[in-house]
Amino acid sequence: MNDIDPLILLTNDDGIHAEGLRYLRIVSERLGRVSIVAPEAEQSAVGHSITLYDPIRAHEITRDGDFYGYGISGTPADSVKLAMNSLLTSPPDLVISGINPGANVGINILYSGTVSAATEAAILGVPSMAVSLDKTKEPPFEWALPHIEILARWILNNGLPSGLALNVNIPALPPDKVRGFKLTRQSLSKFNESVEQREDPRGNRYYWLAAQALEDQTDEGIDITALKRGYVSITPLYYDLTAHSYTEELACALTKL
Amino acid sequence: MNDIDPLILLTNDDGIHAEGLRYLRIVSERLGRVSIVAPEAEQSAVGHSITLYDPIRAHEITRDGDFYGYGISGTPADSVKLAMNSLLTSPPDLVISGINPGANVGINILYSGTVSAATEAAILGVPSMAVSLDKTKEPPFEWALPHIEILARWILNNGLPSGLALNVNIPALPPDKVRGFKLTRQSLSKFNESVEQREDPRGNRYYWLAAQALEDQTDEGIDITALKRGYVSITPLYYDLTAHSYTEELACALTKL
Repeated sequence: MNDIDPLILLTNDDGIHAEGLRYLRIVSERLGRVSIVAPEAEQSAVGHSITLYDPIRAHEITRDGDFYGYGISGTPADSVKLAMNSLLTSPPDLVISGINPGANVGINILYSGTVSAATEAAILGVPSMAVSLDKTKEPPFEWALPHIEILARWILNNGLPSGLALNVNIPALPPDKVRGFKLTRQSLSKFNESVEQREDPRGNRYYWLAAQALEDQTDEGIDITALKRGYVSITPLYYDLTAHSYTEELACALTKL
Repeated sequence: MNDIDPLILLTNDDGIHAEGLRYLRIVSERLGRVSIVAPEAEQSAVGHSITLYDPIRAHEITRDGDFYGYGISGTPADSVKLAMNSLLTSPPDLVISGINPGANVGINILYSGTVSAATEAAILGVPSMAVSLDKTKEPPFEWALPHIEILARWILNNGLPSGLALNVNIPALPPDKVRGFKLTRQSLSKFNESVEQREDPRGNRYYWLAAQALEDQTDEGIDITALKRGYVSITPLYYDLTAHSYTEELACALTKL
């Protein structure tokens, strides 16, 4: 590898010591130079948060005696900001966030640290993808690698429109059982959620946000459905929350206020 | 006020003791019954994060000897989830988050706890708005109240399409100097951001994410521009991050992989 090889920045939300990141590094090293900047501690469900009111520290992390990457005291989005504004000597050609153990689909992506790192890269003008494998316990990360390699190579060769990030979800299947890549939309279905109320040993009440299950879907154009049917789901994301379809109607109503 | 009056849930990201929330309560009590569920501690820039791996506690907070609301150990989005799934005895008719001291416009809204509380309410199917006043230091919250009252009354009478939240930004002007309501889109401009590197007294390096300034805008259809020109900016938000305009192009490319 030399300076002409593309530079790939890796991050995640499970922390720099996570297995998913280690596998991501293996596949990325086939494609170019690799830099790792990731939270030191696990950061799941931090969503798109940034650290404004605390200083951020970056520690050099070694693995098997060699420099592995920077572990930082902030969030996944902080990792991308700090890498691109300070730690890296040149801008990356691609940012990959993951591999997350467990899918990031539907409304859940609003809470996902894995996805927020990719979105942050897109905001900063670098092509990016968030990669998740659809298995939380004992995830077979090696099964994800061929798909990641194909997609990363394609992005490096073709680029992405400015501001776009890909949200990639991979089924927990051996590569030859996967049915292919499927372009999808973010599911907008509600979750079945509840709050569980408990008492601590001293009689004080506390609450847990309880497990959530997605409603049934049949549309293969939706991320969760494509994934469950054995496709690698690829949703292009853009950081625009404006409800464009509603603007005209509301504009009319506002003139009457 | 009786049970037929609408129920308005208030929250914020500056914490239950914040002045902006106290003003929001004043105006909301003119419109119906009011419940407050908000983080106990300041939560700015937590973005759309939720608390999955820790229990959440809710404390009854009094003010001048009377029950004021629940202060919870979680984030703004947690506050809305916990209120609607457990603390409130009936679903609210409207959720208002704020009043935030300082604008929430452009890409910043992805990091905003104020906005995430409104989005969370929209996901749960309740009309909502996030309200921010464009002044960080000594914000004149009372100037925001007439605009909030008009908009809240309008939402209570007309509803909002399911899943929609309004992001409302109010100029720091006396009400009679405000030029009116303006329907806007989220600005997608990049920020000028940088990371400042320092050393602590023991010689260890640390970093601050430095202040950010929006680029110049001239389009009054953009949130930041409308606000700076003296309008109350109203951006309808929807929790769909899919880059719909890009899906066809990408679908074609994927068939070739």
